[in-house]
Amino acid sequence: MLARDDCLKLDADDPLAFARTRFRLPEGIIYLDGNSLGTLPVTTAARLAAVIEGEWGRGLIQSWNKADWIGLPSRVAKRIAPLIGAGEDEVIAADSTSVNLFKLASAALKHQAPRRVILTERENFPTDQYVLQGLEALFDGAIKLKTLPREALLSSLDDSVALLALTHTDYKTGAIHDMAAISAAARKVGALTLWDLSHSAGAMELALNRDGADLAIGCGYKYLNGGPGAPAYLSVARHLQDKLVQPLSGWMGHAAPFDFSDRYRPADGMLRFLSGTPVVLGMAALDEGLKTFDGVSMREVQAKASALGDLFLSLVEAQCDGEFEIACSRDGTRRGSQVSLRHPDGYAIMQALIEGGVIGDFRSPDVMRFGFAPLYTRYVDVFDAVEKLAGIMERGLWREQRFSIRAAVT
Amino acid sequence: MLARDDCLKLDADDPLAFARTRFRLPEGIIYLDGNSLGTLPVTTAARLAAVIEGEWGRGLIQSWNKADWIGLPSRVAKRIAPLIGAGEDEVIAADSTSVNLFKLASAALKHQAPRRVILTERENFPTDQYVLQGLEALFDGAIKLKTLPREALLSSLDDSVALLALTHTDYKTGAIHDMAAISAAARKVGALTLWDLSHSAGAMELALNRDGADLAIGCGYKYLNGGPGAPAYLSVARHLQDKLVQPLSGWMGHAAPFDFSDRYRPADGMLRFLSGTPVVLGMAALDEGLKTFDGVSMREVQAKASALGDLFLSLVEAQCDGEFEIACSRDGTRRGSQVSLRHPDGYAIMQALIEGGVIGDFRSPDVMRFGFAPLYTRYVDVFDAVEKLAGIMERGLWREQRFSIRAAVT
Repeated sequence: MLARDDCLKLDADDPLAFARTRFRLPEGIIYLDGNSLGTLPVTTAARLAAVIEGEWGRGLIQSWNKADWIGLPSRVAKRIAPLIGAGEDEVIAADSTSVNLFKLASAALKHQAPRRVILTERENFPTDQYVLQGLEALFDGAIKLKTLPREALLSSLDDSVALLALTHTDYKTGAIHDMAAISAAARKVGALTLWDLSHSAGAMELALNRDGADLAIGCGYKYLNGGPGAPAYLSVARHLQDKLVQPLSGWMGHAAPFDFSDRYRPADGMLRFLSGTPVVLGMAALDEGLKTFDGVSMREVQAKASALGDLFLSLVEAQCDGEFEIACSRDGTRRGSQVSLRHPDGYAIMQALIEGGVIGDFRSPDVMRFGFAPLYTRYVDVFDAVEKLAGIMERGLWREQRFSIRAAVT
Repeated sequence: MLARDDCLKLDADDPLAFARTRFRLPEGIIYLDGNSLGTLPVTTAARLAAVIEGEWGRGLIQSWNKADWIGLPSRVAKRIAPLIGAGEDEVIAADSTSVNLFKLASAALKHQAPRRVILTERENFPTDQYVLQGLEALFDGAIKLKTLPREALLSSLDDSVALLALTHTDYKTGAIHDMAAISAAARKVGALTLWDLSHSAGAMELALNRDGADLAIGCGYKYLNGGPGAPAYLSVARHLQDKLVQPLSGWMGHAAPFDFSDRYRPADGMLRFLSGTPVVLGMAALDEGLKTFDGVSMREVQAKASALGDLFLSLVEAQCDGEFEIACSRDGTRRGSQVSLRHPDGYAIMQALIEGGVIGDFRSPDVMRFGFAPLYTRYVDVFDAVEKLAGIMERGLWREQRFSIRAAVT
């Protein structure tokens, strides 16, 4: 088992160590929740001050052109593309993940008619399920949502399936799908694939094009460090872009938005997947957040993600002696950059841990989730976090009244 | 005709003069484009710095509860409600105007089945038309969008009409609809009304409830001073809230979002009209922008809006002697807080005016548009702007090459 000094040595040798200086991390906190909300980059506050006081305050309306606000969805997309293995012209930043899912799923269904089945898995992220349910309800029987357990997905792919919509990394267990194998199986029956990358992008090596993915969505506020509720993004493979028309056809997706013509005419390429006016402050913060990936190798990110998770699990097994059920894969190549532990008192334990300065996350009913952001999580952070956890378990600290009251958690 | 000193006197007596100190207005600029993008409030930069460095940087994920990020859509809505004459529990801030239109129009259609006609006017704001066209295309004939000239609307209201969707203030001409009369006519045949308030809210006295409006949407970045691309809002009359279910059913609209259950169950009241995670930086800026209305009487706002427009038009008639066609109503009670002039060289004239420090707006093919934000536009600003315009016309300045090249305008 590794000792603390070994972890310090790993940090000293970490090829990504340079990236940690790009974040403003609060003193005395070990933050293992970058998969819920990424931490604040050092440069974001100054960027936003410049946007607010300079571009908005002094530049006023003219900043749509002079500060290229109008180009922000594409500029931000150029930073996201290499993180997900898509072309720069295959991504656009816009709206929320939920709204983007609606756009792409409905556009895909239109394109795939008369196929009318959307296939998804039971463990898909809830908001994705809700949006697909909303789409099904809207069409009142004209489309059919099939929600199946993971192991039944491949055998259910047939020529009735218009779209297979999956989340690449399971938010609870961290289990990842084999994007290449699933895309190939879907393509064989003519189904399109749509991947939610929210819990993957920025923490793993992704290759949408190489793996044959058709469509993708993802959020900007987790590993991309865009800030709370940052704009999301969507990606459409080049060969599909001009075949898909999405129904949230606001003016930003028009071929000539400032002609103010009466008739919607979708822009070429990714711009057609825009709807209303982009939220400039959110886009600017996301743009700045993505700069934390400048010069970063996603292969090294992937390697460190696996290593941090492996380290966490091995330390838990050594120090917490059977207290937890490991609720994620032990194979770092089959896991996102997170690990999960199950415990009937998981909520109270997590509260005690947070009070102790280690911030993780809790997911109903009993899952404690720890995320590792390879750009700023250190090996020694993992060591110290597990030590803290072991101490809480040993002393039964979480049994104190103040931890067991269940409040709203995020 | 009023002289400059008369205008200074009007400003000195203006009961809203106190509000101007709430904005950071650039030196040497007369800004008559608050109906495109409101100016920067004095307190916004500090608020955003606190959100970024304190709430995000130090508070991290816990700020969803501790800084009540989760409550921002409702908190912002409470500030918007009195500006539009709706109850605090009848408004929510979310997404973009276009996305909100899609939500409400599709929810209304569902509720109104088997009625399947959406009625709108030919001069409706383009993005609203595009979104309704998107909805029509999505349903492939199952719903029918009827786009008619303004004067044909009332006579086309019959029991096939599910929804009448209008923009309250015309973006080009400033013409306003009689909300009470139209709502009553719609109600008589059982049609719902949906009002886009983007060019009205914050510059006029609005009374959704008194006037019997059913649904409304609007943007946050014009007279509400929320910043570029600020989140939008939507409003649903109390009696309709639990009858409408919108299809962009993301987790923020779930009755229990953090239960992460598999099945969408819409929240009670306005929360069900939320979709994905709210963009916190944009919401905070909008919240701060709305504080510029603290203690402001919307009746006085309405009166000043009419007076500023009347002043502008009378000065143009006196000083520009037949150069322009007046493209808006001369009756201040039938106009939003804007005036429009037509000129075949309108684009070049507007460019020359902007170079001269007066910022207005141009709308294809020939409309020069001037907006008045009663909270910060002064009578003397109007005087000086028209004087500048008259000077440009007199000297034919706009004919210079550099103004006539048509570039992208916003």
